[in-house]
Amino acid sequence: MAFKPALITGINGLVGPYLARHLSSHGREVIGIDIHEKCMTEGIRYLQADICDSNGIKNIFNTVKPREIYHLAGISSPQEFNHKPYGSFQINLMGTISLFEAMKDLDHSPIMLAVGSAKQYQSSGYSGKLLETSDLAPNGYYGVSKNAVEMIAKFYVSQYNLDIRLTRSFNHTGPGQSTQFVCSDWAHQIASIVSQKASPVLSVGNINAVMDFSDVRDIVEAYRLIVERGKKGEVYNVCSGKGTPLKYILDSLTTKSLSAISVSVQKDKVNDFASNNQLIGDNSKIFRETGWHPKIPIEKTLDDLYTWWLEKLNNS
Amino acid sequence: MAFKPALITGINGLVGPYLARHLSSHGREVIGIDIHEKCMTEGIRYLQADICDSNGIKNIFNTVKPREIYHLAGISSPQEFNHKPYGSFQINLMGTISLFEAMKDLDHSPIMLAVGSAKQYQSSGYSGKLLETSDLAPNGYYGVSKNAVEMIAKFYVSQYNLDIRLTRSFNHTGPGQSTQFVCSDWAHQIASIVSQKASPVLSVGNINAVMDFSDVRDIVEAYRLIVERGKKGEVYNVCSGKGTPLKYILDSLTTKSLSAISVSVQKDKVNDFASNNQLIGDNSKIFRETGWHPKIPIEKTLDDLYTWWLEKLNNS
Repeated sequence: MAFKPALITGINGLVGPYLARHLSSHGREVIGIDIHEKCMTEGIRYLQADICDSNGIKNIFNTVKPREIYHLAGISSPQEFNHKPYGSFQINLMGTISLFEAMKDLDHSPIMLAVGSAKQYQSSGYSGKLLETSDLAPNGYYGVSKNAVEMIAKFYVSQYNLDIRLTRSFNHTGPGQSTQFVCSDWAHQIASIVSQKASPVLSVGNINAVMDFSDVRDIVEAYRLIVERGKKGEVYNVCSGKGTPLKYILDSLTTKSLSAISVSVQKDKVNDFASNNQLIGDNSKIFRETGWHPKIPIEKTLDDLYTWWLEKLNNS
Repeated sequence: MAFKPALITGINGLVGPYLARHLSSHGREVIGIDIHEKCMTEGIRYLQADICDSNGIKNIFNTVKPREIYHLAGISSPQEFNHKPYGSFQINLMGTISLFEAMKDLDHSPIMLAVGSAKQYQSSGYSGKLLETSDLAPNGYYGVSKNAVEMIAKFYVSQYNLDIRLTRSFNHTGPGQSTQFVCSDWAHQIASIVSQKASPVLSVGNINAVMDFSDVRDIVEAYRLIVERGKKGEVYNVCSGKGTPLKYILDSLTTKSLSAISVSVQKDKVNDFASNNQLIGDNSKIFRETGWHPKIPIEKTLDDLYTWWLEKLNNS
């Protein structure tokens, strides 16, 4: 049986390892690329590459001849983007254009999934569920970089007939996520407190937002199904379709501790929801076109995330 | 009298020298930057700089403290862009983001004019005059790069309150233009034939397009007036509002020669209108808001362009 080569960019991020395992178990030969020297995922082929190195990427595409490309690489933390905007635009815009150009030069026509974000939408003041046709007017660098990529991707689809499919992925989390993201930050702090490696004070930023959280293990299935059953040039919300208040997540995580934890709200602590009050997606399009629906409840996600941190801290 | 510092990026292009002289005569101290070692315009302050060098640009902005920034730099030839897309996206996207970031870091608030293109519009099949509200769906790299810049510029306006004003400049020409552009290409060929430096055969590509041509000397006045009287975050068509068939330009230029010139249509010769049949702009917005209207008829522009080439060839 010939396995279909599937290339994952940014294999060392949160989603990469889950996607690699998922695709391996669905008949793909997975090739991962990332900028680091080493790959964090075992059992796959790894190539170190900078996606902004246009010629290097062309060489990899010509060697690997991927049938599917899952483009996860890029700056995924809005705070990190804000911290170094020029370099982040470089990675998110030019790194993606480099992949489009390499794809254009291939003799065969692979399918690319390019991951976008809920932060592409206009968030302020909107209380309903966001549809793919809702207004795009992001209030941060990260969102506007993804909108620019989406515009350019659609150009490559219409002018060069590339098979690019796009997501607007809402928040997702799970074991392995960095503390740049709110659930993992809180789970890490509480696991540190429970392990008696920190004093019982949880430092939080904005806790008033209501966000749409999915489990990373559901997300990777959505990505595969968009590639298998989605359509060229289309954009798909990838989301739970449910609003979860950050306060609910806070409560769920703090109950992991048997002793009391005090919560210290710090106005200058920026988390990924600093300026968004609500971002809840409508997932009817992806369900209709691919059959995907989320299966893992947020409670299990938070349990697993907390347990992962606890084990990591106890082994360190 | 204190002159207002006005920075021009891409001072060595077609528009730069005309704009420098125009601004100097309207009370500005002109500072030009370009990537070349030398400046082609006398009597202004020149700084060699790569607009993609984000830190270098910040230093220049902090030193010069421009009150006005005229951003002309970038790949302006669609053919050149097609020839090296990755490098051209780099210059047009990242070079402009570098300027926005440098502008954001200034203590004062300058006005920036960022030059876009008629090629941002959807061209195929549309026979009316294009308004600023017309559909944007470019059929080439150059146009999509300008649309991406426009999207990102509007983000900097809304999020960081930068005073950026945008143009969609239609075709313009005049003495000094490179032969990458059709009028200058033809004028150069005919001047070569008349000077007996070439055989009497004019090589042309697509001659069926109907385009909107302005004189570069009118264009620079439009740019100054947008900065003086236009509005933050607004987009202005800069155009004559008239369609001129390329065949008319061909006839006007071939009559410069007293002896017969044969025209050789070469299907594979790509000029800047390879795939656009018609792009005619509506200039009522810029007239209404700034009072600008074009003054120089196309016949004078072509005369001056031809005479310039003739003198250049005779002096070479």
